[in-house]
Amino acid sequence: MRQDHLITATQLSRPDIEAVLDRAREIDGSREAFEQRYSGSVLALCFFEPSTRTKMSFETAAKRLGAETIDMGSIESSSVKKGESLADTVRVIEGYADALVLRHPSEGSAKMASEFVDVPVINAGDGAGQHPSQTLLDLHTIRERHGLDDLTIGIMGDLKYGRTVHSLASALTNFDATQHFISPESLRLPRSVRFDLHESGAQVREHTELDAVLPELDVLYVTRIQRERFPDENEYHQIAGEYRIDADTLSAADPDLTVMHPLPRVDEIAADVDETSHARYFEQAHNGVPVRMALLDMLLGGDAA
Amino acid sequence: MRQDHLITATQLSRPDIEAVLDRAREIDGSREAFEQRYSGSVLALCFFEPSTRTKMSFETAAKRLGAETIDMGSIESSSVKKGESLADTVRVIEGYADALVLRHPSEGSAKMASEFVDVPVINAGDGAGQHPSQTLLDLHTIRERHGLDDLTIGIMGDLKYGRTVHSLASALTNFDATQHFISPESLRLPRSVRFDLHESGAQVREHTELDAVLPELDVLYVTRIQRERFPDENEYHQIAGEYRIDADTLSAADPDLTVMHPLPRVDEIAADVDETSHARYFEQAHNGVPVRMALLDMLLGGDAA
Amino acid sequence: MRQDHLITATQLSRPDIEAVLDRAREIDGSREAFEQRYSGSVLALCFFEPSTRTKMSFETAAKRLGAETIDMGSIESSSVKKGESLADTVRVIEGYADALVLRHPSEGSAKMASEFVDVPVINAGDGAGQHPSQTLLDLHTIRERHGLDDLTIGIMGDLKYGRTVHSLASALTNFDATQHFISPESLRLPRSVRFDLHESGAQVREHTELDAVLPELDVLYVTRIQRERFPDENEYHQIAGEYRIDADTLSAADPDLTVMHPLPRVDEIAADVDETSHARYFEQAHNGVPVRMALLDMLLGGDAA
Repeated sequence: MRQDHLITATQLSRPDIEAVLDRAREIDGSREAFEQRYSGSVLALCFFEPSTRTKMSFETAAKRLGAETIDMGSIESSSVKKGESLADTVRVIEGYADALVLRHPSEGSAKMASEFVDVPVINAGDGAGQHPSQTLLDLHTIRERHGLDDLTIGIMGDLKYGRTVHSLASALTNFDATQHFISPESLRLPRSVRFDLHESGAQVREHTELDAVLPELDVLYVTRIQRERFPDENEYHQIAGEYRIDADTLSAADPDLTVMHPLPRVDEIAADVDETSHARYFEQAHNGVPVRMALLDMLLGGDAA
Repeated sequence: MRQDHLITATQLSRPDIEAVLDRAREIDGSREAFEQRYSGSVLALCFFEPSTRTKMSFETAAKRLGAETIDMGSIESSSVKKGESLADTVRVIEGYADALVLRHPSEGSAKMASEFVDVPVINAGDGAGQHPSQTLLDLHTIRERHGLDDLTIGIMGDLKYGRTVHSLASALTNFDATQHFISPESLRLPRSVRFDLHESGAQVREHTELDAVLPELDVLYVTRIQRERFPDENEYHQIAGEYRIDADTLSAADPDLTVMHPLPRVDEIAADVDETSHARYFEQAHNGVPVRMALLDMLLGGDAA
Repeated sequence: MRQDHLITATQLSRPDIEAVLDRAREIDGSREAFEQRYSGSVLALCFFEPSTRTKMSFETAAKRLGAETIDMGSIESSSVKKGESLADTVRVIEGYADALVLRHPSEGSAKMASEFVDVPVINAGDGAGQHPSQTLLDLHTIRERHGLDDLTIGIMGDLKYGRTVHSLASALTNFDATQHFISPESLRLPRSVRFDLHESGAQVREHTELDAVLPELDVLYVTRIQRERFPDENEYHQIAGEYRIDADTLSAADPDLTVMHPLPRVDEIAADVDETSHARYFEQAHNGVPVRMALLDMLLGGDAA
């Protein structure tokens, strides 16, 4: 990568993405070769919002490279409570660590932080903004199963608020993917995202039902519809039920269909899908480790792709 | 051990127990030989309930073997809050780690988790269920002082709710121990536990007072009587006071008597006992490290005893 | 150091201080030489009060020396909640670790803890008491810029409640520093601290305004005036405003003036000071790492200075 920080997925060109994913593939093939590569390095985990899997997977990635991690701890126990600014917090922590992973509720916070420090900053989610390492692990999962060319993908669920979805859709415009968006009318892809996709020449279709488009798909990416988006409990249950899949739903799919989900899931994918060959969401979560190892390797090692 | 997981103390045969304790003894004798043995391995600490000493001692055990740990963090900050099932959580985490240590408030949760993952699961407490590594460190402490044969042990305090006690009593039936249970009537050993002990041929006696039996004991294992078991504050204080020991109480004991306690203690053992040669509860807590190192060594190393 | 524990700054003689700071300088010059020095050692972090930077910087220091850390976690999730005494907690933890770092809300707690354990205890703040490693990193920062001899220092802000300030002022009496204390009347240095400084022959002046003394200073050490010290919100804002500095304030200062602050800051130092050459508070925070590495090296290595 030609960047010192990883702030957005949109900063990544096709060669950037391929460089990271090639490195992740290399790591997957020979983990032992990377085991002590960053012995003596320290990665700071600065999570201003709770996170289980993102934090644990960065922690694992660092440790599998021989690096150590230090953890800012919860916001409740931090100096943020005493009124410290984010700029001050990261300027102190850069003195302890060789790179920073930052999750923060405010959009733009990772970009701002990166302007105050000299060590690499990795955005692990900034509010409704970006979460680029999630996008890279999604792409890695797709690529290892189907490649990224001539792909037909369906993205279903809450397309309005899901940053994961926006980021993935945008990254896929680097490849010649056909993207189908399946959601209730009230949770459609925001106009601005649709506009950007069209601008970049993406082949995009929108649907309110999965049925018609399912047989064409290589990948079905399911996201959670959140209760709190609906003022009415009944409306929520009705709509969530319509965008829920089970093994029966998938009988109409291509045998090679890959089902993905950023997790945690609640009800969107029935447990009986887990036993089908379509289920790749745990593999997808596990891919967080080699992909984040690759990212750390490129940022700490100072590679230029 | 012939198991891939450590779920209950009852799964352990006498040779299993002796294999772990032999390994713990070996580790105690030559810590340096084990220092880098699991360099590059990662142990996941999944504590769905608070714990200080169990978690710290597993963490220490892993690190003394050269392994790394990753921590799920508190439940409040985890994806469990978002409604994720335990089965999903452990299936994600198995992709990060080489083994899982699980504490969870629901009895049977560790067994259930072990059915969903391919890496070893160690039960570090499942509600009112089992806590087998505690039992093993208790046995190690007894064995290093007295051996496990021809042992006379007194177990005192809350015998009704204490999983530590049930588990230890059950494990001791593998050896020819005489077990005296000392408690108020209302906190007697549950009928089912008494039944199982009798079934396995254990020599068991019950008492409401310590005095008569104290001189015979090799080991006195004290547990905490919890305030919340009593509707009435006065009744609690009266009963707790009767099952409290101090240096004076122990003047009637054998000079070689070992006093144990799973800790934390509140008031059950007076501070003046700490300075007597009977006090072994801190040593007992410290034994968590070599015993858990032995367990990890056997599960990660894939030993068959 | 001739001590096994680090409890107070006042326990440190001039040669003690210089030995630590020399070691810190050596570490700063050749970090790689120290990288694996304590591989296999374990440092326990026992924070009974929240802390971000102190904890992270001890954690970093340990890991930069190749040592591991184990964390007691938050008090809410610890056995302290079950009524365990501090003496019991530290006696358990000493079985896991080679040294303990302790922060606790009660003055005198670190001293007490050190009497119960055989491993070195480092006081990382005991209520209104001491925080000696903060003092050492303050001294290191001053020494690397100005030396510690013939120093003229101004200490400004809340001089009544700030343990950082009392500890630094006391340590500076080992050197021939001139100390100017600048504060509102209501937040003057406590009488007992003034008395001790006079007793040890320190050159001390008190002021209510910075202006007159600013041009003479080599170092200006600013501390936060806390809202909760004032019953009246308006009075707080008025007073805090008078002891706030910005780039304009510093135009009257010596070009070599060093501005320090223990951080976190809220408003006491305007952001425009950050870009001046006077600002050394981030450097000061970063110095926590080499100074704490030096401390750990001397306590774990068993040096006698």
